[in-house]
Amino acid sequence: MTAPRVLVLDADPLPRLDRIAGRAEVLHSDADSLAKRLPEADVLLVWDFTSDAVRHAWPGEGPRPRWVHTASAGVDRLLFPELIESDAMITNARGVFDRPIAEYVAGLVLALAKDFHGSWEAQREHRWQHRETAKVHGSKALVVGSGPIGRRIGAMLQTLGVVVELVGRRARVRDPAFGRVHAADSLPELLPEADWVVCAAPLTTATTGMFDADAFALMRPTARLINIGRGAHVVADDLAEALRAGRLAGAALDVFDEEPLPAGSPLWDVPGLMVSPHMSGDTFGWRDDLAEQFLDNFDRWLAGRPLFNVVDKKLGYVPTEDT
Amino acid sequence: MTAPRVLVLDADPLPRLDRIAGRAEVLHSDADSLAKRLPEADVLLVWDFTSDAVRHAWPGEGPRPRWVHTASAGVDRLLFPELIESDAMITNARGVFDRPIAEYVAGLVLALAKDFHGSWEAQREHRWQHRETAKVHGSKALVVGSGPIGRRIGAMLQTLGVVVELVGRRARVRDPAFGRVHAADSLPELLPEADWVVCAAPLTTATTGMFDADAFALMRPTARLINIGRGAHVVADDLAEALRAGRLAGAALDVFDEEPLPAGSPLWDVPGLMVSPHMSGDTFGWRDDLAEQFLDNFDRWLAGRPLFNVVDKKLGYVPTEDT
Repeated sequence: MTAPRVLVLDADPLPRLDRIAGRAEVLHSDADSLAKRLPEADVLLVWDFTSDAVRHAWPGEGPRPRWVHTASAGVDRLLFPELIESDAMITNARGVFDRPIAEYVAGLVLALAKDFHGSWEAQREHRWQHRETAKVHGSKALVVGSGPIGRRIGAMLQTLGVVVELVGRRARVRDPAFGRVHAADSLPELLPEADWVVCAAPLTTATTGMFDADAFALMRPTARLINIGRGAHVVADDLAEALRAGRLAGAALDVFDEEPLPAGSPLWDVPGLMVSPHMSGDTFGWRDDLAEQFLDNFDRWLAGRPLFNVVDKKLGYVPTEDT
Repeated sequence: MTAPRVLVLDADPLPRLDRIAGRAEVLHSDADSLAKRLPEADVLLVWDFTSDAVRHAWPGEGPRPRWVHTASAGVDRLLFPELIESDAMITNARGVFDRPIAEYVAGLVLALAKDFHGSWEAQREHRWQHRETAKVHGSKALVVGSGPIGRRIGAMLQTLGVVVELVGRRARVRDPAFGRVHAADSLPELLPEADWVVCAAPLTTATTGMFDADAFALMRPTARLINIGRGAHVVADDLAEALRAGRLAGAALDVFDEEPLPAGSPLWDVPGLMVSPHMSGDTFGWRDDLAEQFLDNFDRWLAGRPLFNVVDKKLGYVPTEDT
């Protein structure tokens, strides 16, 4: 048996794959050469998970890798018809980002409640301006997304005394951590109750654009939206309008339709909107964690054992009993 | 028996004391008239807890109130010799600020770890600048102050996965929440281990100036200092120098020697220093909570029952088994 060939769709810095030296042949590709290299590969490691290169290269000619791993939690860039309909398995980085993203969201909730931004603005102007701010304890959060990231966010907010309702693809009457899980079609009843609305959903047809003018009209004028999912979950123009009109108290977006967000985007200057550069899950060492996770799965693949984090290509995420 | 006279050292807005209408005579005073009004009062409610008027007025002539309540957790402004040596009891607002301040500190820890300030700075300049940031889980905090505020801060940080060491006036080998409590003389061994140093101590002779150049020299260059105690706990010039020299990664001060911090203070512009206007505990409704707490104690006083939150004038705080 020849050594399997692992093709890496490169991003800078490259993954540390020393652990498979001698057991696999590692090939590298950029977006432009991907179509040409794909037929040589047994495994495709989508290290540049921000690229649409796979979508463009895959429909070409020749054999295709049997396994595609993306170093991201979201798999929306891989869910195009030719890959969905192929025999190739998709795995993702489920697990690596849960706690970092939960910390990030908990930090946003507290920072928004305590108006740290207002303190920084006042500090720039040497202005001592005492304000009263909100208690987080007893406030209500609606977390949309019942996968491991949404669950970890919800659990962390619960430890801060926030009352959390979780929304998933389908309702569950009993849930060990959250009492129950609501279906997405309950949003019209749930949105008016929430002080915090957090989007941690996978991007699917059902969730694209779910946060639009209609949703914002249902939210409290004192509520805030936090999106660490995908840019396309939120209709950004609607959000900007709601914030400018004072129909929402604030929002924090870490993800955008176009990334990097262009310098000319009006979103940078919307009052009450915090823009951050898709960094919520990226703690020191995250790239090494991603490489290690792929290598753990690669060991299974070599041994002929079932892979973990296998994406259900119809659902658009890794299903578990919980979700 | 004539109705007891409650003298209020006024601050705007005045406390809501309707609950004692008919049972007490409520008198009002500003700082200038306090000396003249003191002899008429059975009870002094220090509603303007930022004022030094009591210190100035108390040593004058005539009878003195038997009970002084301050609507603050810190009692340092009342611990002058003439009041310490008098028969007057002092009570404070212990309990009202615990959770709000803990939320504030947890928010600072997360906001500093995730560099929200850097994101806001980049946003001002329409600059997409991805950064890796720190995990809070597994980091180490040293909380100085083992009263209810310090304990609540420590407990909240623990729920975020932070490893917390607590420092009190004296060591305790067994502590139900923190394993043990360290004595302040252990600081030289503890400071080098901490990612976060939080000051939540009462201001006493022993704690004044405890965070000075010597302390900062022992801290990690990656560590951050948070002070929600009193300004005088920190030698601000030493802190500014340590931050400018990169010997500390950052700090957040909510309290200052002089409040409001003068517009001309160099502290406003120290890199890595967040200045906030003594607001960490002041959540919506806090003044009503403070008035209710005084009134609860006033009910006890009228009934001849022991007051709660009685300050040990020698220690400088309300002693409990825990502290």
